[in-house]
Amino acid sequence: MDLFIDPTQPRAITRSLYDQIRAAIASGRISAGEQMPPSRQLAQELGVARQTIATVYGRLTAEGHVIGRGAAGTFVAPTADAHRPARADRTRSSALAPRPGLPETADPEFQPTGLDLRSGTPDLALFPHVAWRRAVLAAAHQPPSGYGAYAGLPELRRTLARLASRTRGVVADPDQIVVTAGAQSAIDLTIRLLTVPGDTVAVEEPGYLPVRRLIESLDRRVALVPVDADGMQPEHVPARARLIYTTPSHQSPTGATLTIARRRALLSYADRHHQAIIEDDYDSEYRHTDRPLEPLHLLDTTGRAVYVATFSKTLAPSLRLGYAVFPVELARHAAALRAASDVQPPELLQRAIHHLITTGDLDRHLRRSRKIYAKRHELVADWVARMSTAGHLTPCATDHAGLHLTVRLHNITEEELAARLEPHGIRLGSYRDTWAKTPDHDGAVIGFGNADSSDLEAALSRVEHALASPPPRPRVRP
Amino acid sequence: MDLFIDPTQPRAITRSLYDQIRAAIASGRISAGEQMPPSRQLAQELGVARQTIATVYGRLTAEGHVIGRGAAGTFVAPTADAHRPARADRTRSSALAPRPGLPETADPEFQPTGLDLRSGTPDLALFPHVAWRRAVLAAAHQPPSGYGAYAGLPELRRTLARLASRTRGVVADPDQIVVTAGAQSAIDLTIRLLTVPGDTVAVEEPGYLPVRRLIESLDRRVALVPVDADGMQPEHVPARARLIYTTPSHQSPTGATLTIARRRALLSYADRHHQAIIEDDYDSEYRHTDRPLEPLHLLDTTGRAVYVATFSKTLAPSLRLGYAVFPVELARHAAALRAASDVQPPELLQRAIHHLITTGDLDRHLRRSRKIYAKRHELVADWVARMSTAGHLTPCATDHAGLHLTVRLHNITEEELAARLEPHGIRLGSYRDTWAKTPDHDGAVIGFGNADSSDLEAALSRVEHALASPPPRPRVRP
Repeated sequence: MDLFIDPTQPRAITRSLYDQIRAAIASGRISAGEQMPPSRQLAQELGVARQTIATVYGRLTAEGHVIGRGAAGTFVAPTADAHRPARADRTRSSALAPRPGLPETADPEFQPTGLDLRSGTPDLALFPHVAWRRAVLAAAHQPPSGYGAYAGLPELRRTLARLASRTRGVVADPDQIVVTAGAQSAIDLTIRLLTVPGDTVAVEEPGYLPVRRLIESLDRRVALVPVDADGMQPEHVPARARLIYTTPSHQSPTGATLTIARRRALLSYADRHHQAIIEDDYDSEYRHTDRPLEPLHLLDTTGRAVYVATFSKTLAPSLRLGYAVFPVELARHAAALRAASDVQPPELLQRAIHHLITTGDLDRHLRRSRKIYAKRHELVADWVARMSTAGHLTPCATDHAGLHLTVRLHNITEEELAARLEPHGIRLGSYRDTWAKTPDHDGAVIGFGNADSSDLEAALSRVEHALASPPPRPRVRP
Repeated sequence: MDLFIDPTQPRAITRSLYDQIRAAIASGRISAGEQMPPSRQLAQELGVARQTIATVYGRLTAEGHVIGRGAAGTFVAPTADAHRPARADRTRSSALAPRPGLPETADPEFQPTGLDLRSGTPDLALFPHVAWRRAVLAAAHQPPSGYGAYAGLPELRRTLARLASRTRGVVADPDQIVVTAGAQSAIDLTIRLLTVPGDTVAVEEPGYLPVRRLIESLDRRVALVPVDADGMQPEHVPARARLIYTTPSHQSPTGATLTIARRRALLSYADRHHQAIIEDDYDSEYRHTDRPLEPLHLLDTTGRAVYVATFSKTLAPSLRLGYAVFPVELARHAAALRAASDVQPPELLQRAIHHLITTGDLDRHLRRSRKIYAKRHELVADWVARMSTAGHLTPCATDHAGLHLTVRLHNITEEELAARLEPHGIRLGSYRDTWAKTPDHDGAVIGFGNADSSDLEAALSRVEHALASPPPRPRVRP
């Protein structure tokens, strides 16, 4: 407990100390039953006469806030909590309002059951606990550093350059790597690095909602570029855009793969209009039935593409680890901006992921989890094919990758489907939320990252039942 | 190694695979001596005839890029690295430029000796390794989560609310706490939450350079408020400022304590002009010879003050842990903005710091390190008093706290002092860099966080010698 004495009002010390201790008890800062500091000690600490403290304690005792127990000391009365005001009184209401244009995002609720088919989260039951603990322990054995290494630890940047090259076909020098807190913070950094307020950033429609929110919160304008079964349509990127955000490996949410022809078209369009590109390769570790195409980063000959990767899908979102590969001259500026915004990535996490990669544990985990997700992907893809034949839905794209599949619904709205599934504790991902404008059709995102095969089968059979049920009778208003 | 096949050019497969493998060897993506995938396996993976792979391998062998070792397989030739082009050829130069107005910050160089008296970094030799490893290990035993808890884990927010109240006199509900990556990211979040581009943020002059850089990188305007021995002068805060950044407990860099009268004046000024305040309490754990004054947060009756704290000074900067205390209605918006910018704080670090606090290990560490820093503070303060009597310098303020002392120099410039100390491997903190404008006097920041008492004594005696030496002879130009 800190107590304060106002040096400008020396005569009010007794009253002030009494008020502060009473407030501390009332607010719960000192709990019922807790011992008060001995009066001699407190007097010494505060540089006041012991009699002053004795007077304060005496008054608090008389009023029942504290209890004297002789030589044992003075204790907060057990009933003191009863004086504690309701929460609303303890916190102040604020005259401040947030700036306009900020997102309204509440913490997501999690399903207690295994039937949460929203997309985004991998199967946390597959998390390589033993290897991760080993990596963390190894990391914690190294002493911490001061300020510096804004782009990340040099040894981790070397390891990530090699990883990106080995697993994703991205040829990069360690100097080009900036370690980030997942993909989202890499995108935040890139937008702040390459654009100013009022600039236009082109995004996919439908697309990844958190990036639209981020762009708007940074006072940049969002331009929507339509997506079809072959991914983003480069011919619809507005010339005024300074930056293009795209998910070429696995369009979020439709699952489309940007074709080679469109990749080349997008790069040459960007070149013509002096635009930069963010290539968000958020889940390309999971390719189930097809070969990958060259990343934009590899096709790019003029250094326009910033490649973004994350460990949120391969390990866990709550790790907050990812990286960006910048054109080499930009990486230095990105590191300087990073120093100004949040200084440097946490060292412990950097060392742990470095250990996990160099020991081969990450590869082993990926080989194992790839097989499991491939099976789930097949299960959902087969189901989607059957539902499509039955006329209930159409897949948005031929989707060979990742942890979700997205479909258009034919005879039911997103809301009605959700309402039918709700009693069974099943939630699908929202298709509507991936659109900035209102779409002219309904859809659903089926995430299979966080549900095992038997849960998936059970859930899909429920969804099938919901799709096949007759339409609800229109409600008659009384 | 990822290999790509262009589906639009099926007849060029052999050539394309040959080129890609050669490029992978040339760029070092496959190292000398590494085994190539068996041709049968590669053919299967790529869905091409085995003869195609045999042709490619044959050509690579003939040219000496790889070596066939019969049944053992095909290996990258040991001389392959010789073909590797110089680094400049492997990375592309970029057509992109960073946006204007970004800081130029390079990683700091660290002194190999113990005579680095720049400020900011605590003594990493005092870091509680054993307790921290215990905390990290306990944290790593808990399974990771998905997305969510944007403001931080509920149990950590409860613990931090209690810690802030117990040690800093900040009365806060857990709902008001947002866990951040140190003070800098808390300030980044607050600026983005409460202001828009073009808004003015008032800062102290001299003041903390990284915050000025941050404000400018966010396209807000910086207004400079002069500081004297009693801290920031509230009457010089411009009415147009939307946000005021201040370090009342221990002004950075002068060490002044903002007086109670000025705290009240600042709050009432802010109230009159609808301004918000960031109270950066970066090192108030270390008060050496005086009692603390009430934080602005406690005096604030209208919910204008955002209180910012960090573990960078009490533990280590490379942990990247801190927190902000927002007025309660704002905390929800801060969490939503955080979700858009970097989603959530890393769970492992949150659990580790939670463990370190609840076990009492942080308190034990603080009690121990406070004593050590108090001795160093006394040593430097005594030296400053002697130097002041000798007429070499004047302390900027009566400084009772923290890990540095700041002085005005009388008979020597900052550059000349640095030049005299350089041969001895001694570096002081730059006073000039804490000013946005050019100051009319020279100064020096003496950081004693990261140097033990004997190093400190040795270094200060060198500084004394440098101060007392006759002025350099003016150079005669030839």
